[in-house]
Amino acid sequence: MSRLLHAQSVLCLFVVSLGIPLAAQSGPTGSTVTQEVREYRIAHEAEILNELRDLLALPNVASDRENIERNANHIVAMLEARGAIARLLRVEGSPPAVLGQLDADGATRTVVFYAHYDGQPVDTTRWSSSPWQPVLRDGVLEEGASQVSWDVVQSGVDPEWRVYSRSASDDKSPIVALLRSIDALRDRGLPLSVNLKFFFEGEEEAGSPHLRSFLERYRDQLDADLWIFCDGPVHQTRLPQVVYGVRGVMGMGITTYGATRVLHSGHYGNWSPNPAVMLVQLLASMRDDEGRILIDGFYDDVRPISDNQRTAIEATPDVETGLKDELSLGRTEGEGNRLLEQIMDPAMNFDGLAAGNVGAAARNAIPTRATAALDFRLVPDQTPERVRELVIDHLRSLGYHVVSEDPDAETLRSHERVVRVTGGAGYPATGTPMDLPVSLAVEQVVRDAFDQELVTVPLLGGSLPLNTFEEVLGVPLVIVPMVNHDNNQHGANENLRIQNLWDGLEMYAALMARLGHVWSITASDPVF
Amino acid sequence: MSRLLHAQSVLCLFVVSLGIPLAAQSGPTGSTVTQEVREYRIAHEAEILNELRDLLALPNVASDRENIERNANHIVAMLEARGAIARLLRVEGSPPAVLGQLDADGATRTVVFYAHYDGQPVDTTRWSSSPWQPVLRDGVLEEGASQVSWDVVQSGVDPEWRVYSRSASDDKSPIVALLRSIDALRDRGLPLSVNLKFFFEGEEEAGSPHLRSFLERYRDQLDADLWIFCDGPVHQTRLPQVVYGVRGVMGMGITTYGATRVLHSGHYGNWSPNPAVMLVQLLASMRDDEGRILIDGFYDDVRPISDNQRTAIEATPDVETGLKDELSLGRTEGEGNRLLEQIMDPAMNFDGLAAGNVGAAARNAIPTRATAALDFRLVPDQTPERVRELVIDHLRSLGYHVVSEDPDAETLRSHERVVRVTGGAGYPATGTPMDLPVSLAVEQVVRDAFDQELVTVPLLGGSLPLNTFEEVLGVPLVIVPMVNHDNNQHGANENLRIQNLWDGLEMYAALMARLGHVWSITASDPVF
Repeated sequence: MSRLLHAQSVLCLFVVSLGIPLAAQSGPTGSTVTQEVREYRIAHEAEILNELRDLLALPNVASDRENIERNANHIVAMLEARGAIARLLRVEGSPPAVLGQLDADGATRTVVFYAHYDGQPVDTTRWSSSPWQPVLRDGVLEEGASQVSWDVVQSGVDPEWRVYSRSASDDKSPIVALLRSIDALRDRGLPLSVNLKFFFEGEEEAGSPHLRSFLERYRDQLDADLWIFCDGPVHQTRLPQVVYGVRGVMGMGITTYGATRVLHSGHYGNWSPNPAVMLVQLLASMRDDEGRILIDGFYDDVRPISDNQRTAIEATPDVETGLKDELSLGRTEGEGNRLLEQIMDPAMNFDGLAAGNVGAAARNAIPTRATAALDFRLVPDQTPERVRELVIDHLRSLGYHVVSEDPDAETLRSHERVVRVTGGAGYPATGTPMDLPVSLAVEQVVRDAFDQELVTVPLLGGSLPLNTFEEVLGVPLVIVPMVNHDNNQHGANENLRIQNLWDGLEMYAALMARLGHVWSITASDPVF
Repeated sequence: MSRLLHAQSVLCLFVVSLGIPLAAQSGPTGSTVTQEVREYRIAHEAEILNELRDLLALPNVASDRENIERNANHIVAMLEARGAIARLLRVEGSPPAVLGQLDADGATRTVVFYAHYDGQPVDTTRWSSSPWQPVLRDGVLEEGASQVSWDVVQSGVDPEWRVYSRSASDDKSPIVALLRSIDALRDRGLPLSVNLKFFFEGEEEAGSPHLRSFLERYRDQLDADLWIFCDGPVHQTRLPQVVYGVRGVMGMGITTYGATRVLHSGHYGNWSPNPAVMLVQLLASMRDDEGRILIDGFYDDVRPISDNQRTAIEATPDVETGLKDELSLGRTEGEGNRLLEQIMDPAMNFDGLAAGNVGAAARNAIPTRATAALDFRLVPDQTPERVRELVIDHLRSLGYHVVSEDPDAETLRSHERVVRVTGGAGYPATGTPMDLPVSLAVEQVVRDAFDQELVTVPLLGGSLPLNTFEEVLGVPLVIVPMVNHDNNQHGANENLRIQNLWDGLEMYAALMARLGHVWSITASDPVF
């Protein structure tokens, strides 16, 4: 019985195999690596947990420059303890990034493992324990779990126990898992199959404002064949997952205008233009209630879904039935399409509407303006700039004069319809095709590491600015997460389920020990 | 030079004559009555103003039962001083209404003059003087006018001076004008042409909750051929106006539902239904941005505009050009139709929209619900009940399950689209046809009273529950207002421009002295 399979709402599972010819592979098998690393781990659990505890005890909000430097230096020492070359990368005004490097004998390919060591700011009033004094609990806090003394780790821990601390999941435990993977492989005599680099960012939770500068300045030192992102959680069924991309995002505000003062809806209704009606009409012309975007040309740039992607989507566990029940939904958009299939399409989300007053505060009056907050989720090959252009073209086709600031009286008087468009910033999607040799190799290694199903996700619905890596470095990237989905990421009482740390260790060790071998074979194999 | 013509924004004026054959009329001419009443007034200005001052000094909020009774008794005494039979009408839980009656020798028709003696509650912190200590000013407060001692009235007042007090305009000065009209006619030897009744309501500003009970209980004593409403202001150009109806009103709330918790718009956008999109789509299907209501059958009950009404509308002064400039409008709804023409149509107003957040508070999330506040302005022959039915039928035709309370999870799960409809209460329009003999007679008498244009309004855009009179008593009604439009009605520093009191006196006296004669002729005249 797999220890990973503690699914909360798995109703059915599908297994998909892409048919990689295992017989042709060299190097250790997946089960060998898993077994050896597991034996190492069982012998070193207290050591591993204490190393994590020490790292978690360092406050790590990016704006706390003194402590963030302590984190960076601590991680440099951790890397050096493994014989890696480690240094701090610096860009003016930013916490340092930590770069580590460890070459493998005879390896021809280099993989960068990415994680960030900074964490979200905390509201301590909402935490049950101090965010930077890691606490061990014998289960889930919200389910009434009790605190357990750290001394107990010497005599063994239950893998369902959890560590509560800021960054316990996001992202300090992946850093420990990665470095302990080196220890485990070395301890068991399993050689690295790829050259390793580590890039640990120090201001991801502050929005990565200097990321592009780091990548551009240190482009040569970051040279690699693949980036593996260790950020984010496994699938909500607790199955391992590999993610090949993320949707981009672009936010926008749209405001329409009526008379410059609030008017009596009886004396002026259906004579003085109603900005709420105008907003409703223009929004309705842009998006239907099945999720379809009606803006002319909107889908022209959308990369069509590939066969591999469709196969992967069809194979994902059914989360939809449980979600519909949990969320009390009588239908879903897209006429019943799978969630991940819908996510392969761009989305136009109405995040907010505001005009006048509703409910008990409503009054019979024509508001002076009406505003909508929108966000667009972009898929590969779309850009925020182009989407913004398409929206503006659409508004103009409806007869609107488009402005970027609040219009003055003369502007309002001299145009029949005025709309203000704000925002438009964002970033594009990142999508590594699932049928690249490297994609197939990663999938195969992760699949082999576990004796259970793997969820492969072509595109995450949410957005991360991974495009910066793709744009600056021109390298493929995949996300191979390890932490539990219910980790209270960004919130109070962030936590790590210990089994996820053990699984992460086996998974990252397998990638280090096997990826170079599997990749060599798949790269030259004509079946893909 | 007419003293009424102090128009602030009159750009052009039109004169309309309906061709009543004056040669056939008996009784005094309009100019005779005006001249006689004016001479009376000039000789009694101080007396009239002091009578108004005494009435204004009585606090008159409907909920202040002790003072409201003092007002009622004071008005009974005022009526009795004119030889009218006066009494208090009582309905449990309400301030009394005052009924007065004064018969005319040989008159065959009875007219009820309506006004209300209660006033809006006051926020004294916003008043420049005490609301119930009437103050005389030598002009408009907001334009820097100074207070003038009341003693000055003995030596004559400038008609542009104003009296500041709660109910100076709304409605105590019409009561004084009506009773002084009796005095003036009697003083100048001009007989009444109709039997007079007066109905002075005591809780109009509290929403008239007992009005229907009063009318039903005292139906016999209120028997009449016409009700004349002395409430409301003259036209904003300061021209006199006669109004034949008011739009009805019905308020409604509409709420759509998405998932029962706020969802990340990236992970769930274009899969989980977005209630803001649903709201926008359903609202857009109901009303276009020219004011046209798209609900099937909505116009079936609408009474078509008559030739008289169209002629009257075309003859109204152009207020639209000034309004468009003042309100910074680049267009108006109805493709450039006149304001009053648009008001002859029902209106569907979007008073408010609310969902999620906009502007700086916006976040990339799918809201759980979206709400609109609407009001419908109804025209004659529509009912709130039927309009509500049509809206609900429309929502059902879009596939919505319509509920009246917040739906529970099971209701949401078992229907594809759920909408909550609240409200639906209101009252219908009241519209006296402009080509009734009585309508033409009133118009003629008021027109004759002044040597300037008269604005005739088929329907006011705003709403008043005059339907109660029409429904209970089955009698035609017209609104013949006298007070200035810029009277700060309902607000702080309510005031009366003294010239409007003088004009009101001449106008109501003319109606009393001449309506019976003009009406007799028009009633039998085939030209209408």
